[in-house]
Amino acid sequence: MTISPLVDQTIAAIGPLDAAAVAAAEARQGVLTKPPGSLGRLESLSIQLAGILGQPIPQITGKAVIVVAGDHGVAAEGVSAFPAEVTPQMVFNFVAGGAAINALARHAGANITVIDAGVAVDLDPQPGLTIAKVGYGAANIARGPAMSREDAVRCLEIGINAANEQADAGANLIAGGDMGIGNTTPSAAITAAVTGADVASVTGRGTGVDDAGLEAKIATIRRALEVNQPDGSDGMDVLTKVGGFEIGVLAGVMLGAAARNCAVVVDGFISGAAALIAWRLCPDIAQRYIAAHRSVEPGHNVGLQAMGLSPLLDMEMRLGEGTGAALAMPIVEAAAKCLAEMATFTEAGVSDGDD
Amino acid sequence: MTISPLVDQTIAAIGPLDAAAVAAAEARQGVLTKPPGSLGRLESLSIQLAGILGQPIPQITGKAVIVVAGDHGVAAEGVSAFPAEVTPQMVFNFVAGGAAINALARHAGANITVIDAGVAVDLDPQPGLTIAKVGYGAANIARGPAMSREDAVRCLEIGINAANEQADAGANLIAGGDMGIGNTTPSAAITAAVTGADVASVTGRGTGVDDAGLEAKIATIRRALEVNQPDGSDGMDVLTKVGGFEIGVLAGVMLGAAARNCAVVVDGFISGAAALIAWRLCPDIAQRYIAAHRSVEPGHNVGLQAMGLSPLLDMEMRLGEGTGAALAMPIVEAAAKCLAEMATFTEAGVSDGDD
Repeated sequence: MTISPLVDQTIAAIGPLDAAAVAAAEARQGVLTKPPGSLGRLESLSIQLAGILGQPIPQITGKAVIVVAGDHGVAAEGVSAFPAEVTPQMVFNFVAGGAAINALARHAGANITVIDAGVAVDLDPQPGLTIAKVGYGAANIARGPAMSREDAVRCLEIGINAANEQADAGANLIAGGDMGIGNTTPSAAITAAVTGADVASVTGRGTGVDDAGLEAKIATIRRALEVNQPDGSDGMDVLTKVGGFEIGVLAGVMLGAAARNCAVVVDGFISGAAALIAWRLCPDIAQRYIAAHRSVEPGHNVGLQAMGLSPLLDMEMRLGEGTGAALAMPIVEAAAKCLAEMATFTEAGVSDGDD
Repeated sequence: MTISPLVDQTIAAIGPLDAAAVAAAEARQGVLTKPPGSLGRLESLSIQLAGILGQPIPQITGKAVIVVAGDHGVAAEGVSAFPAEVTPQMVFNFVAGGAAINALARHAGANITVIDAGVAVDLDPQPGLTIAKVGYGAANIARGPAMSREDAVRCLEIGINAANEQADAGANLIAGGDMGIGNTTPSAAITAAVTGADVASVTGRGTGVDDAGLEAKIATIRRALEVNQPDGSDGMDVLTKVGGFEIGVLAGVMLGAAARNCAVVVDGFISGAAALIAWRLCPDIAQRYIAAHRSVEPGHNVGLQAMGLSPLLDMEMRLGEGTGAALAMPIVEAAAKCLAEMATFTEAGVSDGDD
């Protein structure tokens, strides 16, 4: 498969986890002052982090949330409870620091950057906002492909570059976040295409459509799959036909972060759809994913299960923006700190269970 | 019911949540820049915090973990995979900063204090360790009551005073943590007594007993309940007959924190047993509990359900020490920050779903 020199090279850089670091972390967990296994998922998470970062005692050096915005032609089909004008309004809210992701990223100590990948209107450049418009909204997937192959490649490259910037700045725990009115619709289409699940089982109410709206949304997604016939085994085909600009950039962020040996914190349903695309492009990447939370959107869990991921949190959230990922970051960091900071039985003079 | 002037007065100070603050927080959640309900449990948690702290926009001003240690005569029945000498060894590990709770409390920004409520050996006083020994280990509950009623009262008072100290120092998010080899055994007895659940359904492997050990542990707990016949509706009777010194102090910590309008973060199985005792003494307290996590110990969930609590995290942990509570503290704080820091639709110029 050849996508572009940057994308190809990024995918080629994503290998298996560092086995020596994994083994060392596992061994250390066994001698820390606690009954073996008693820290549960914090232990397995610390071991995964060791493998991802390639460090026997992994250290989180920086955290970043890359929020990517884009519009969706399919919103014209009435699939969202909110009008499309909310996408640019929320971008300004992100830049002004007033959205949920701002509060949660600040709380997590994560750097936040905002990318306009395809908002339907022109936004004024300003500090904290990168204009990297691939187009003025993805095309209506109920009537044809979301974007050209060239645009899909551009999306991935923008994401890769954004992840590289954050890695260059010291981040090794990186999450994407999404904003785009209507974007649970392409996400459901992606999830159905990649996993083979029935559309009804992966379609939820998004920001809050009613029963009739949900039925219409399911029908729209079925139409998008019938019209486009995406090949679920081919991430580029899925992105091109039923994706979205912000979703493509998010997939690129994940590829770029993984290639730099950063841990990728996967947010909710839209990020999960992006994670599925990146996973189809590079199956090894799933080992570098940390699923942050179980979204209320039913399709999110279907996608996570397909990748063998189990979310850390189940907070009944469905906001996107990277909020679930930012909320999980302190948990991920806690896992690393327990491995790094706890005394061993020998150091502390504590008898272990075999005495 | 009269227990002692301090305990009675503490219980009397615990009333229902502040309804005006709850209503104000609820109203504010409805106008913040997100689809209504999309932050899920972060929203309900912020509203609960408003009611507990009595603030329309609750602010966490300080966090504290009070770790309480005690030994258990019932450990002589072979109910634990670790020897009793580990209790004092771990106390020194806490004081030296090398235990899991130290790493997690530091990460959460929580102050940590350690109380010897009943370790079986004398510990040298040192900075960071309060010696408040009620006895040299609770008596073997398989053969008689754990302690006298006077000792049970002392336990509650020590806990109330410890919570008051932390509240005086500015904490309004307070958790207890436990250390005591053998203490899942009294916790299971307490949980069975208070909830009426069968002993086998509330007994787990603790720090790691094998199948035969689990059977023997269940038999020991059944014996403790037969010998002592605790009245599950009477918290004092339960504590006296099948409790433990650290469990009694933890129940006092919860009462004292709640009486000061602090939120009580309930850790795992042992803290959950203490929470059940405090709840029997003061049913209103459950509204001030935030269940941190679902322990691997099966009895924890039984106790939480009895109190109508649903845990925030499910990390397959079973360490105690307050580790689950410390891990949940950043989540609780995140809930408060979203409510406080997010812009409203009007402030941000964002269209809401009704436009």
